[in-house]
Amino acid sequence: MDQQSKPGLIVAPLTPFTADLAVDEPALRRQIDYVIGDCGTTMVVAAGVETQEYTYLGLEQRKALIRATVEAVGGRVPVMVGISHPSFRTAVELAHDAERLGAAAVQLLAPLRPFAGPPTQSDLIAYFEAIGRETRLPITLYLNPGPGADVSIADTIALAKLPCVQLIKESSRDLARVSRLIVEIDRTGHARYFTTMQMLLASLELGGSGATMPPPGCEIARHVIDAFVAKDYERAAEVQLQFALFPSKWMHRGLAPTMKAAMNLIGVPVGDPYPPYAPLTREESAALAAFLRTTVLAHRFERTAAA
Amino acid sequence: MDQQSKPGLIVAPLTPFTADLAVDEPALRRQIDYVIGDCGTTMVVAAGVETQEYTYLGLEQRKALIRATVEAVGGRVPVMVGISHPSFRTAVELAHDAERLGAAAVQLLAPLRPFAGPPTQSDLIAYFEAIGRETRLPITLYLNPGPGADVSIADTIALAKLPCVQLIKESSRDLARVSRLIVEIDRTGHARYFTTMQMLLASLELGGSGATMPPPGCEIARHVIDAFVAKDYERAAEVQLQFALFPSKWMHRGLAPTMKAAMNLIGVPVGDPYPPYAPLTREESAALAAFLRTTVLAHRFERTAAA
Amino acid sequence: MDQQSKPGLIVAPLTPFTADLAVDEPALRRQIDYVIGDCGTTMVVAAGVETQEYTYLGLEQRKALIRATVEAVGGRVPVMVGISHPSFRTAVELAHDAERLGAAAVQLLAPLRPFAGPPTQSDLIAYFEAIGRETRLPITLYLNPGPGADVSIADTIALAKLPCVQLIKESSRDLARVSRLIVEIDRTGHARYFTTMQMLLASLELGGSGATMPPPGCEIARHVIDAFVAKDYERAAEVQLQFALFPSKWMHRGLAPTMKAAMNLIGVPVGDPYPPYAPLTREESAALAAFLRTTVLAHRFERTAAA
Amino acid sequence: MDQQSKPGLIVAPLTPFTADLAVDEPALRRQIDYVIGDCGTTMVVAAGVETQEYTYLGLEQRKALIRATVEAVGGRVPVMVGISHPSFRTAVELAHDAERLGAAAVQLLAPLRPFAGPPTQSDLIAYFEAIGRETRLPITLYLNPGPGADVSIADTIALAKLPCVQLIKESSRDLARVSRLIVEIDRTGHARYFTTMQMLLASLELGGSGATMPPPGCEIARHVIDAFVAKDYERAAEVQLQFALFPSKWMHRGLAPTMKAAMNLIGVPVGDPYPPYAPLTREESAALAAFLRTTVLAHRFERTAAA
Repeated sequence: MDQQSKPGLIVAPLTPFTADLAVDEPALRRQIDYVIGDCGTTMVVAAGVETQEYTYLGLEQRKALIRATVEAVGGRVPVMVGISHPSFRTAVELAHDAERLGAAAVQLLAPLRPFAGPPTQSDLIAYFEAIGRETRLPITLYLNPGPGADVSIADTIALAKLPCVQLIKESSRDLARVSRLIVEIDRTGHARYFTTMQMLLASLELGGSGATMPPPGCEIARHVIDAFVAKDYERAAEVQLQFALFPSKWMHRGLAPTMKAAMNLIGVPVGDPYPPYAPLTREESAALAAFLRTTVLAHRFERTAAA
Repeated sequence: MDQQSKPGLIVAPLTPFTADLAVDEPALRRQIDYVIGDCGTTMVVAAGVETQEYTYLGLEQRKALIRATVEAVGGRVPVMVGISHPSFRTAVELAHDAERLGAAAVQLLAPLRPFAGPPTQSDLIAYFEAIGRETRLPITLYLNPGPGADVSIADTIALAKLPCVQLIKESSRDLARVSRLIVEIDRTGHARYFTTMQMLLASLELGGSGATMPPPGCEIARHVIDAFVAKDYERAAEVQLQFALFPSKWMHRGLAPTMKAAMNLIGVPVGDPYPPYAPLTREESAALAAFLRTTVLAHRFERTAAA
Repeated sequence: MDQQSKPGLIVAPLTPFTADLAVDEPALRRQIDYVIGDCGTTMVVAAGVETQEYTYLGLEQRKALIRATVEAVGGRVPVMVGISHPSFRTAVELAHDAERLGAAAVQLLAPLRPFAGPPTQSDLIAYFEAIGRETRLPITLYLNPGPGADVSIADTIALAKLPCVQLIKESSRDLARVSRLIVEIDRTGHARYFTTMQMLLASLELGGSGATMPPPGCEIARHVIDAFVAKDYERAAEVQLQFALFPSKWMHRGLAPTMKAAMNLIGVPVGDPYPPYAPLTREESAALAAFLRTTVLAHRFERTAAA
Repeated sequence: MDQQSKPGLIVAPLTPFTADLAVDEPALRRQIDYVIGDCGTTMVVAAGVETQEYTYLGLEQRKALIRATVEAVGGRVPVMVGISHPSFRTAVELAHDAERLGAAAVQLLAPLRPFAGPPTQSDLIAYFEAIGRETRLPITLYLNPGPGADVSIADTIALAKLPCVQLIKESSRDLARVSRLIVEIDRTGHARYFTTMQMLLASLELGGSGATMPPPGCEIARHVIDAFVAKDYERAAEVQLQFALFPSKWMHRGLAPTMKAAMNLIGVPVGDPYPPYAPLTREESAALAAFLRTTVLAHRFERTAAA
C-alpha cells in the first residue's frame, strides 16, 4: 500500500440483492463504477464491513461477492478483502483467496472472546499474529465494538505495532480516543489510521490517513478531501457539515437501509436491505431526498429528473 | 418437548479438539456418556452455545460436530441443535439438517442488527417468524447479549408468545429480570424458561423450568435438582452454594477454559481450549482442583487417584 | 450490631412531604410504626438511600429528617444513618451527628470519582479509612452504581476487609456477583451482606444476612424471612414470588413513586413523590392495587375497605 | 449573553486548597489573573464542573468559593455560577445568590433520577422549567453522563428549545452526536453549544460556539481560536493537535490532578488534588513537563527557569 498517498478514501460498496436474495451483480458493477469514476475512491473494500450485509451470506455466496467485487473494480484501484469470520480457519481460507484474486490487503475485525469476558491484550496479539503468519497480505485492524471487541487505547497501540498490521479502520466517533490514536499510531508510522464520515475532516487535520465509508457518503467525502488538499479549509468544513444530519437522522433504520435509500434516490439503485430489516418508509425517504438536495449530491437529482 | 417434565437439565458438552484442531470424537463420546449416564441430563445441546467453541469451526466441521453429538447421544435423551449463524439461509440449512438427524428442537441466538443500532421488536419478531416458517422443530430463543442482542423484558415477552418459540435459554444473571420473565413467560405457559448455573435454585423456586450449562457443572446441578424435587431444600441450597465460587473465580480465563480444566481434573479429559485462548496455568488448575474436592465432585478425584 | 441475629430486615422509610415540600413528620411516624410494629423490621435507615428522596433536601432539612426518624423509632430497633455526601467534611459532620443521636451505624455510598474515570481500589480504601478514622460507628458500605461507583468484586472484597466496614448494602441484582460476594465476605466473617427485595430468598439460602428495602416491600419480606426461619421453604418461595412483578412492572415511574403508591393503597399514606417526578397515573395505580390484592398485603385492603 | 461574540472560551478555574483544605484565595486570584489576562477567557465558571472539586465542599464553603471567584474576576469578564445540587431548593438558593453577585448565567447539570431508571424527557423539562421560573438568569444546560444523566439527542434538543436554556456545555467526545446537535441547536439559534478541549476545532468548524475547560488547557485553546478567527486553519489544526495527548495520557489520575500538575509546572501553582485523590507521581509529572515543553505552553517554562 506504499503507493497510496494520503489522504485515502476507502469505500465499502453496498450489496444489492435480487428478489430471491442473490447478489445483483449488474447493480454492484454500476455502483462500483460510480464510487471509482465519480467519487475518486482510492481503495474498495470487498465484504469487509457489516453495512455491506455480507454476514447474511453463506460462505460460498460471500466468496462470490468478493470475486464479483474484484472483477468489477477491474484493477482500477486496489481492493481490500474482508476476512473476518468466527472460524480462524475460514478467515485464513478467505485470506488465501484474497491473495489469489490479487487483493492489496485484508481486513479483520478484532474479535470478541467467544465465551464470557473481553479478550486480553495477549489474546488479541496472538490472534493477529496467527493470521499474519498465514498470509503475505498486510492486515487492516478493524475496530467495531459490538460485532467485535471493544479494544482499549493501550491494546490498539500494541496491535498497531505488529508488522502485519498496516492499516486501522476505526468505527468510534470518540474524538478524544481517535485524536490520541492518530498521534500515537499514524504520525509515528506504526499504521495508517482511517475513521468514518463524521470524523473525516477532524481526522485529516490531526494527520490521520482518511476514512472508509459506504456510498454515497464517499461522494461528499471526496469534496471534503479535495478542498482539504487544496487548502480550502472553509470549503472543507462547509461540506463536512453535511455529515452532521446525514446519516444520523435516519439511523433508527440502521446504516445499510439509510445508505441504500440514498443511493436509490440519487439514481444509482441498489435495492432494499436484506430481510428482515425494513427499508425507509415513503415519508422517511422523502425527508432524506429533501435533505440530500441541499448537499453536494444535489446535482444527481437534476440528472435523475432530467432523465 | 411435551414429554419433558420439569425441572430440566440441558447440557452443552464441551468440544474436545485433537492436536491438529479436529473434533476429538472419542473424547466427545466419553464426555456425553458422562453427562447422560452420570449427570441425569434431560437434553443435550449440539453446537449451540459459544462455550462449545463451535464458532471457530467452518460450516462442514460444525455440521460434523452436530452429527457426532447426535450419534453419541444415540437417542438416550433428546438433542437440541444450535442453528445460530449470521446467514439466515445457513441457519435454515442447519435447521433442516437438524430435522433429518431427528433433533427435538433448534436453538437460535437473538441476533445483533448487523449494522449500527439495536434490533427493534419488529426486527426480532420478523426474524424468528421467518425461521419458524422454515422448520417444523420448536425454537429455543437464546438470549446472550454480546454475541447476540440485548433483548428488553418487553421484547422477550413478545418473542416468547410466538408459537414457534417454546423454550428460552437466558444467560443473564439479573435476578430481577429473570424473576419477572419466569412469571410472565413460564408460569403463563408461553415458553419454558431455562437459566444458568448460578441461577438454578432461584429459578426452580420461582417456577422456572431448569438450567442449561456445560459439564461438569451439570453434575453439581443434578444434586441441586434432585434435592429440590425431593423437597430437601436445605440440601439444595447447600449444593447450590458450590456455584458461588465455581466457575466465577477462574472466569478471567473464560468459561470454556475453566470448564475444560475442571473436566480434565475429574477424569473426563476434553483437552485444551481452541487457540489462541490459553488453558489455566498450573497454579490456577491446582487451586481449581482444591476447590472441586470440596464439592459433590470430590468422589471423582478419589476414583481418579485410585485408578 | 453484634446482637443482631440473622436474618436481618433493614427498612428505609419513604419520606412523606407536605404540600409545601417540608417533611410530613406525622406521616413519617405512622409509617415507622408500621414498619416496626407490623413488619418486624430489625433496623431502620435514616436518609440513607435515594428512594428516601433525601437528596432533594438541603443539609438542615436532611438533618431534621434524620432526627425525626430517630425520634420516631424511639429506640425500638437500631437506626443506621446515611452520611453519603459529595463533601467529605459534611459526611463526617453527619457521622458525628449520628453518634450524638445514638445511631448504631452509618451508611456510606462508594463514591464516584468526581472527575472523569472510575475510582481505583486505593482511592476507595483511602476514602473509607478516612471516614472510619473520624467516627467510632461501624460503616455500612453502600454499593449502588449510578449515584455511586461501580465497584468490582475484587474491590468490594478489599473494602469488606477494612475493620470499619461491618455491613454491606448491595443494590445489584446480579446473582453471580452476589453469590460470590456472600461466600467471600459474609460467610468468611468480613462483613454482613444485605441485598434487595428480588434477591432476598436467594441471599438467605446462600448465607447472606438479609435485605434492605422500603415499605411496603418489607411486609412481604417479613413473610419470606419467617417462612425461611421456620424451614417452610415452599412458603418462602411462594411469597418471594410476589417480588417478581412488584415493583418491576411499575419501575418506569421509578422506585420511590411506585412504593409511595403502594403505601397509599394499603392505608399507610405517604403522599406523592417530590417534584418534578410524577406519581403513578390512576390506571397504573389501579393495576398496582389489583396486583397487591393477590399478595400477603391483601389483608390491608380489607382493613381499608372496612374502615 | 448577547454581547458575547463567537467563538467563546469559557474557563473553569481549578480550586486551590490550603494544607487544611480551605480554599486558597490568593492562589485562586493569581490563577484567575492568568486565565483572563493571559488566555483571553471570555467567561469564567464559578464552581460549575466537577474538575473544580467543588463537590467536596460544604454549602457554605461552596458559596464562599463562588464569591471569591466573582470578586477575583472583578467584572473583567462575565461569570457563570454553577448551581447543580441534588436539592432543588439549594439549586434555587444558589441561583438567587448568583443574581445578587451579578452573575451573567447559571450552569445546571441535567440530573440523574435519584431512584432507579433514567429521567424521561418530561422529567427533564419539568426540572429545567421549574428552575427557570425561579431565576431571571439564563441557564446553561450541563451534560455530563455519570455525575448527571445521559441525555439523548432528542431530549437535548427539547431542552435547548426552552427559552430559559441559552447555552449548552457538552462533555461528550462523540463527534457524531455533537455534529448533529451543533447543527440542530446552535445553527438554528436555540442555544449556543460549547464543547471540550479535544473537540474545540471540530466544533468551531461546524459552527459551534466554543468550548469550556480548565487551565492551562485554555491557553492552548486561545491559540486555536485566534488562528481559527484569523483563518489560519493550518495553525489552528497544528495547535489543536496538542490536545491529542494532553490530558489523555495522564487521565488514569483524573482530570483535576492532571490539570493541577500542569499548572504547577507552568508556574501558576494551584496545589494538590483534594484527598483522597493522589497527585501525579514524580515520574508522571516529569513526563508531563517534557510534553508541555513541546506545546504553546513552552514559553512558561523558560520564564519559570529564568525566574
